[in-house]
Amino acid sequence: MRELTTDHISQQFNNELETLRQHFLTMGGVVENQVADAIQALLESDGELAEEVKDKDTTVNELDGIIDEECTRILAKRQPAATDLRMILSISKAVTELERIGDEAKKIANLSMKLINEGESPRGYVEINRIGQMVTRMVRDSLDAYARLDVDAAIRVAKADRSVDLEYKTAIRSLITYMMEDPRSIGRVFNVIWTLRSLERIGDHSRHVCQHLVYLINGVDVRHIPAEQLENTSKQQSEDE
Amino acid sequence: MRELTTDHISQQFNNELETLRQHFLTMGGVVENQVADAIQALLESDGELAEEVKDKDTTVNELDGIIDEECTRILAKRQPAATDLRMILSISKAVTELERIGDEAKKIANLSMKLINEGESPRGYVEINRIGQMVTRMVRDSLDAYARLDVDAAIRVAKADRSVDLEYKTAIRSLITYMMEDPRSIGRVFNVIWTLRSLERIGDHSRHVCQHLVYLINGVDVRHIPAEQLENTSKQQSEDE
Repeated sequence: MRELTTDHISQQFNNELETLRQHFLTMGGVVENQVADAIQALLESDGELAEEVKDKDTTVNELDGIIDEECTRILAKRQPAATDLRMILSISKAVTELERIGDEAKKIANLSMKLINEGESPRGYVEINRIGQMVTRMVRDSLDAYARLDVDAAIRVAKADRSVDLEYKTAIRSLITYMMEDPRSIGRVFNVIWTLRSLERIGDHSRHVCQHLVYLINGVDVRHIPAEQLENTSKQQSEDE
Repeated sequence: MRELTTDHISQQFNNELETLRQHFLTMGGVVENQVADAIQALLESDGELAEEVKDKDTTVNELDGIIDEECTRILAKRQPAATDLRMILSISKAVTELERIGDEAKKIANLSMKLINEGESPRGYVEINRIGQMVTRMVRDSLDAYARLDVDAAIRVAKADRSVDLEYKTAIRSLITYMMEDPRSIGRVFNVIWTLRSLERIGDHSRHVCQHLVYLINGVDVRHIPAEQLENTSKQQSEDE
């Protein structure tokens, strides 16, 4: 990030971008905790923790709004070009993915309340634990990739999503077989299936976060030339019309 | 849209925004057809139509890329302020929702192939038909709302999503009861459930499209002052620092 923002005429602009980045990572941190806590609440039948996850939704939505406003304000006031523009656009899109991850965590928290109320019968919990750990790590790694603008790390997250999809499909198949053998369990098992589905979605959203980063970095790659030359290029484009 | 773009110094800028808007609506049209066709393919066991839906995915992804590039290029070259900036940002976000709607339509097409291969047993098809019609209309209405920048229409779409969620929950409950009575049907019924889930998602994405529009219009509402004054305001903000 620092490397990419050294060409600004204004130190204040640098500060604004840094604030934006910090808010993005803060929101990511809240969402990452929501996911980890929602899974823990479910596995350990901790209704209080599930409530905490749901309460954090307000914080996430507030941060979503703040970051969106910051993006709009910076674009209007600073009229950034090239890398900075792509950075802001990719954050603007990635923040929507974070917000959706928070939504899925909230759904898991709600499902965990239902499962707690229904009492002990942890069928599928091994799978929730395994896939839950995989996607929590994906969320964390996608934020780290953003923090370090690391395109290789981003690609690794995208690849990890394939393993999540495979594990998810295997888990669903096994739960379908179980329901066939014990139809009375169907109602309860469905709450486990919706949980797995939400986890799979969180994996998808993390992959999307990383795709927005790859778009940002690829933009940087193909335009990997000094700022003055970039400015010349964009002037030439306007004149060409 | 026309009303909102009369203040531009450059006719060419107007043309660029109009092209962007046209591409957005074109993409919306393709996606809307994908949804309608995917539902028809499933209900009428039409494998050829299902294949067509899947093939259109390439077009949708291409349009997604084109529109994203257009947004970035206009922002870099024209450095728009106020309404135009919000317009571009909201299209940039809404286009992601359209792309996801296309993904869900593709999933439904894949599920319809599975259901066709498994042979006749149209349990849940009444619900797919009903909810399918509801969400197809939501997609169309959200595009119309964008085309006419109609915030009331956008709010109506958001409200329609609640009815979809209710219908969806009722359908799932009824299918769970059915599976309990006939556990051998579970495998097949699951493909119906995933279809309903995709339809419910399409409703969500349409609602999000409309939320991006409301954000755009609300921005217009609060800043509903002539362009010169807007410019003065933003200059003043820079000087205040």
